[in-house]
Amino acid sequence: MATESPGGYTGKILRVDLTNLKTSVEEPEDDFYRRYFGGTGLIGYYLLKELKAGVDPLGPENKLVFSSGVVTGIPSAGTGRNAVGGKSPLINGWGDAQAGGFWGAELKRAGWDAIIVEGKADKPVYVAINDDKVEIKDASHLWGKLTADVEKQIQEELGDKRIRVTQTGPSGEKLVRLSGIANDINRYYGRSGLGAVMGSKMLKAIAVRGTQSVKLADADKVRSLAKWLADFIRERMGDFTNYGTSGGVAGLNTMGILPTRNFREGQFEHFDDITGQKMAETIMVEKHNCYACSVNCKRVVELGPPYNVDRVYGGPEYETIGSLGSLCGIGDLKAIAHGNQTCNAYGLDTIGVGTTIAFAMECFENGLITKEGTCGLELRFGNAEAMMKMVEMIGKREGLGDLLAEGTMRAAEKIGGDAMKFAMQIKGQELPMHDPRGKVGLGIGYALSPTGADHMHNIHDTDFQNPRDVKDFGILEPVPLLDLSSAKVRLYRTVVNWRHFQNSALICMFLPYSPKQMVDLVDGATGWGTSVLELMKAGERALALMRAFNAREGFTAKDDRLPTRLHEAFTSGPLKDKPITREAMQEALQTYYAMAGWNPELGVPTTAKFQELDIGWVVDELATAGIKV
Amino acid sequence: MATESPGGYTGKILRVDLTNLKTSVEEPEDDFYRRYFGGTGLIGYYLLKELKAGVDPLGPENKLVFSSGVVTGIPSAGTGRNAVGGKSPLINGWGDAQAGGFWGAELKRAGWDAIIVEGKADKPVYVAINDDKVEIKDASHLWGKLTADVEKQIQEELGDKRIRVTQTGPSGEKLVRLSGIANDINRYYGRSGLGAVMGSKMLKAIAVRGTQSVKLADADKVRSLAKWLADFIRERMGDFTNYGTSGGVAGLNTMGILPTRNFREGQFEHFDDITGQKMAETIMVEKHNCYACSVNCKRVVELGPPYNVDRVYGGPEYETIGSLGSLCGIGDLKAIAHGNQTCNAYGLDTIGVGTTIAFAMECFENGLITKEGTCGLELRFGNAEAMMKMVEMIGKREGLGDLLAEGTMRAAEKIGGDAMKFAMQIKGQELPMHDPRGKVGLGIGYALSPTGADHMHNIHDTDFQNPRDVKDFGILEPVPLLDLSSAKVRLYRTVVNWRHFQNSALICMFLPYSPKQMVDLVDGATGWGTSVLELMKAGERALALMRAFNAREGFTAKDDRLPTRLHEAFTSGPLKDKPITREAMQEALQTYYAMAGWNPELGVPTTAKFQELDIGWVVDELATAGIKV
Repeated sequence: MATESPGGYTGKILRVDLTNLKTSVEEPEDDFYRRYFGGTGLIGYYLLKELKAGVDPLGPENKLVFSSGVVTGIPSAGTGRNAVGGKSPLINGWGDAQAGGFWGAELKRAGWDAIIVEGKADKPVYVAINDDKVEIKDASHLWGKLTADVEKQIQEELGDKRIRVTQTGPSGEKLVRLSGIANDINRYYGRSGLGAVMGSKMLKAIAVRGTQSVKLADADKVRSLAKWLADFIRERMGDFTNYGTSGGVAGLNTMGILPTRNFREGQFEHFDDITGQKMAETIMVEKHNCYACSVNCKRVVELGPPYNVDRVYGGPEYETIGSLGSLCGIGDLKAIAHGNQTCNAYGLDTIGVGTTIAFAMECFENGLITKEGTCGLELRFGNAEAMMKMVEMIGKREGLGDLLAEGTMRAAEKIGGDAMKFAMQIKGQELPMHDPRGKVGLGIGYALSPTGADHMHNIHDTDFQNPRDVKDFGILEPVPLLDLSSAKVRLYRTVVNWRHFQNSALICMFLPYSPKQMVDLVDGATGWGTSVLELMKAGERALALMRAFNAREGFTAKDDRLPTRLHEAFTSGPLKDKPITREAMQEALQTYYAMAGWNPELGVPTTAKFQELDIGWVVDELATAGIKV
Repeated sequence: MATESPGGYTGKILRVDLTNLKTSVEEPEDDFYRRYFGGTGLIGYYLLKELKAGVDPLGPENKLVFSSGVVTGIPSAGTGRNAVGGKSPLINGWGDAQAGGFWGAELKRAGWDAIIVEGKADKPVYVAINDDKVEIKDASHLWGKLTADVEKQIQEELGDKRIRVTQTGPSGEKLVRLSGIANDINRYYGRSGLGAVMGSKMLKAIAVRGTQSVKLADADKVRSLAKWLADFIRERMGDFTNYGTSGGVAGLNTMGILPTRNFREGQFEHFDDITGQKMAETIMVEKHNCYACSVNCKRVVELGPPYNVDRVYGGPEYETIGSLGSLCGIGDLKAIAHGNQTCNAYGLDTIGVGTTIAFAMECFENGLITKEGTCGLELRFGNAEAMMKMVEMIGKREGLGDLLAEGTMRAAEKIGGDAMKFAMQIKGQELPMHDPRGKVGLGIGYALSPTGADHMHNIHDTDFQNPRDVKDFGILEPVPLLDLSSAKVRLYRTVVNWRHFQNSALICMFLPYSPKQMVDLVDGATGWGTSVLELMKAGERALALMRAFNAREGFTAKDDRLPTRLHEAFTSGPLKDKPITREAMQEALQTYYAMAGWNPELGVPTTAKFQELDIGWVVDELATAGIKV
C-alpha cells in the first residue's frame, strides 16, 4: 500500500491549457508544500498569483484548480477528500468547494497533487489521466448528458471500471450559477458555483486512474493512527454510521435551529419525518464509504415509481434534507430523495438550490412571483411536487428556473420589492442548513467566510462545547452557545483557522483526530516534524490568501454581514426573542479583525500580518491592484 | 523519584507577609497553572494584580515573587531553574531574573510552586521552609555577612547540610541597584537589581529543604525524554561540558562582536587569554552541575594569593568573562575570577557591575571622572587592579562605588556631560555581553525586552541559523545575521515568545529539547495534552503581562530603543561600517508591534490581543491606571 520516503514531500502539479489543448507539469519544492499544504492553501497561492483582478468568472481568463493535500490518499480514514477553487460566478470573488469520495485519492495515486485548468476549449473535452499519461479527449458525445451516464460512458470507452470521474453536469454546461462539480457522481464540490466555471471552459470531466502507492515518510506512524481511528470508528461512531449526517435533525429541532420555511422558523412540525433515523428505517438501502474510511456515513437510497430514484445517485445528506426539506416546509423524505437525485444528475448544489427554492416560495407567498411566472406551479412552502419540478427547471434553466439559476441575490435584484429580504445569502452564496441564531459563533463565521455562507469554512459552536476538544489549542473554558463576547471570537477564530488547515491538508472534519494526532498524520506523510502551531498558521495563511483574493475583487469589511433575517429573533421556540443584534455582531467582527491582525475597513490582513504568515508577497500583489494594506 | 498523578497539575503558593511576620497558603486550580505556567508568567499575574502603579521598588509596597514552573524539579536535565520578579529598582518598572542550581527544585520538592514576599520586616529575617513547615526567623546575626558564610551558618543552625539557600548579599542590604539574588551562593538571579528589593524588605534569605518527590502525570514519558537528553548530552555536548558558556569567546571575537572596551570595539587583542578553553587549562579545578543535569557547564575555579579565590564561589560564566574582562579591556582570567568572587560574595550582578565599571572607565578616560573621584584609582581600560577594587567598592557603596551602585543610567545623569553616551543601558538596565551589531535580531530583542537589555529575555540570531531548529514553528528559511527585514522580525518574535515560555515553564535554554519534546515534557509533568501552539501562546502571554506592567509604570514605545553607540558602526573588524541604522530599527520595531498586535504608541497589546491571549482582565487593570489600549 505504501512505500517509505523519509524526508520531505514531493509531488507534481498538472497544468491543463484548454485553449491550446496542451498540458505541462510543475514540481514545486518541499517548502512550497509545507507553506501552502494543498487544498485551499495551494489553490489560494495559484489563484492570487495567476488570476488578474476582475476577470469574468465564466470567461477563459478564470482558472480552476483541483487540489489534494499532503495527507490525501494515505491509508487512513478521512484522507479521501479533495478541493477545487476558482473565481466564483455566484460570489464574483473567491470560490472553493470540497468533496469526499475516491477521485481525490485516485488523483494522488496517479502521482498528482493538483491540476490547474486554464483557458477555454472550442468544443467539449475531457481530460483522461492514467498515472503519468495525460490526454485531452473529445467530449462532444458527453455534452448534455446526466452525470451517471457520463461516468459510465467514460469508464467504458477508456476500458476500465476503476476509473474515477469528476465532472460538470448539464446545469454547469448551461452556466447555472448554483452548479457544483460532481465527484464519483454523488459526492459534490457543491459550493461556489464552480460547476458553471467548468462548463464555461467546455471541460466536461476529468477521469483518473492511479496505480501508484502514496509515499509515506513514516508508514508505522500512519498505520498506528489508522488503527486507532478504525477502532474509534467501530467503537464510538456507531450512530454516525447508522444515521449519517442527518442523525442530528431531531436535536436541531429541539434547539430551535432546524432551518424551516426559508429561515423564518427554527422548528419544523414534520421534523420527525426527515431524520436520519427515519431514512435508515425507510428508503435507505445501503451505506457507502469514502476512500480508506470505515464510517460509511454516505446514505444510498432507492425508490420505485413515481419517484424512480436510482441508487447510483446516492442519497441525501443533512444539508440536502434541510434545504429541500424543512427549509421548503417539506416533510417528505421521498420527495427530498428525488430532488437530491435531480441535483446530482444535473450537477447542482443541493444547498444553493434548496435555499433558492425556499426563497422563491416566500416570494410566491408574498405575491412577488405569480403563477404565470411559475408556469402554473403553486410554489408554496410544503409543496413537494413544486419543489421537485423546480429543481429540474433550475438544472435546465427552464421558465422561472432560468431566473433562479442565477441564485437568490441576482434573482432578488431582478424581482425587486421585498425580495432581497427573502434572499438568504451572504456575498451571493446561499446559506447552508445551520442557523447561527442558536450558535452565534457561526454567525461570525458566515459573515467572514470568503465564500459567504459556507458550512465547509465553518464549524459549529455545538461541536466544541466539550473543552477537551480545544484544550490542545489553549482554550481552557467552554463558551456558551449564545455568547458573542470576545471569548467566543477567540474560540471561533481558533477553530475556524484549524478548519482552513483541514481544508488545506485535506482531512475529513467528521473524523476525530485530535490536533496532535493531525500533527502525527502530517508527519507520517511528509516527515516534516510539524507542530500544532505550524498547522494552525497554515490554516490562517490559507484564509489570508482567500481574503486577499476577495479584497482584490473589491470586497471590504462592509461585505462581512448577515442577511437581515438572522438579526431578527424567532417568534416562537426556545430562541424566541433572542436575536443576534447587529450591534453585537458588529462588535464581534471588529474584535475579530483586531485579533486577527486585519485592517478593519478592508477586512484583510495588514502588511505585518501577511509578513508574519510568511506570505509578504501578497502585499505586493494587492498593491498592484491599488490596495494598500 | 517520582510518583504518578494522572490528570491536572496541583501545587501550592506560599505567601510571606514580612510586615506582620505571617504566612499563608494559596492553592490555585489546574487552569491557573495552565494559563500562567509559573516563572515569569505566574509572576506577571501576581505583580499586575497586586502591585499598585508607581510603588517605590525599594519600599514595603513592592513584592517579590519567586516561582518555579510546571517542569521544575522533575527528573530530567534542565529542570533546576527558578525565576524571581518584582518591580525593579534599576528599571523602575518590571524586573525579573532567572537562576539555575538546586534551590528551585528543592522548593518544588518541598511542595511549593511559588513564594510571594510582601511588606517589610522591622529587623532582618529569613524564611526557613522544611516541606510544609514554614518559619520566619531572626537574621540579625547574618546581616552584613558574605553569601558563603550566610549559607553555611543557616545550614548549621538548622542542622541540615542539604538545605538550599537563596539570599541577598551585603550589596543588596545596602540597596545597591546592581544587586542580584544569590542562589546556592554561585548561581544568580542576576538581573533587574532584585537583590536590593530583598534587602529593602530586610529579608536576608530563604532556606529550603524538600523531601517529597515531584508528581508526574506520565513518568514513563519523562523517563524516556530524560534518557534521550542524557544520551544527547554525553554524545553531543562535550564542548559545552568541557568549556562551559565561555567556549565561544574566540568565535565571537572572529565575528567581531566580543564586547570590548565598553562596546567601542568588537574584537579584543587578548581574547585568547579569556576563553573557556584557557580557563579549563589554567584556573579551573572542577565542573559543577545543576539539578538533574549532566552537562556540568558550571565552572569552579580556585586561586591562591594574591587572588585567594575560593571554589565555593564557583567560577566566571561567559557573561562575567565578557563584562569584567574584554568590556573593561582586561585579558586576565585571574582578575576576572577575583571580580566574580567579589560579586558572588557581595551579591552583585556581574553583568551590571562589569558594564558599569566599563562605563566608569570610559568616563575616566574622557575626564568625566577624575582620580580624586576614584580615591586615586587609575580607572582605565585594562587596569585589572582598578576593576577588582571597584567591584568591591560598588558592593560596599564606598567612594565612587556609591555612585556606580546606582547603575549607569543614574550615574550618568549625575556625572553629566557626555556620560550618558557611555552608559550602555536600556530602560536603566546594563547590556549583557552580546552585541547586536553582528546579530541584529538581538537589537530588536534588547529594545523590546521589558527588563531592557536582558540576555535571559532573548536568544541570539546565531542560535537559530540552522533552519531545523525553528521549522517546528513553521519558519522554513534561515534569515541572515545582518538582515533586519520583516522576516527577521517574524523569526525573532517567534523565538523570543518561545523564550518567554521557557522562562515560564522553567527550562534551561541550553538544553536541546525541540519544541515538540517540550510538549512531551510538559505533558509528562502535567498530563495536560498540550501543544507547541499552546506553549507558544503561554510565552506570548507572559510577555504581554510584563509589557502591561511597564505600561502602567509609564513606559511607552518610545522607551524601546537602543543606546546610541549600537547605532554607530565599528571602525574596524568584520563589521566595520555596518551600523544598525536608527531607521532600520524603527521600521523593524513598527513591524514588530503590528505583527504582535501591539499598540504602536503604547507598545503594549491591544484590547483584542489581550483577549486573544485569554487575559482580557489586563485591559481593565490598565484602564484603572488611565491607560486605554
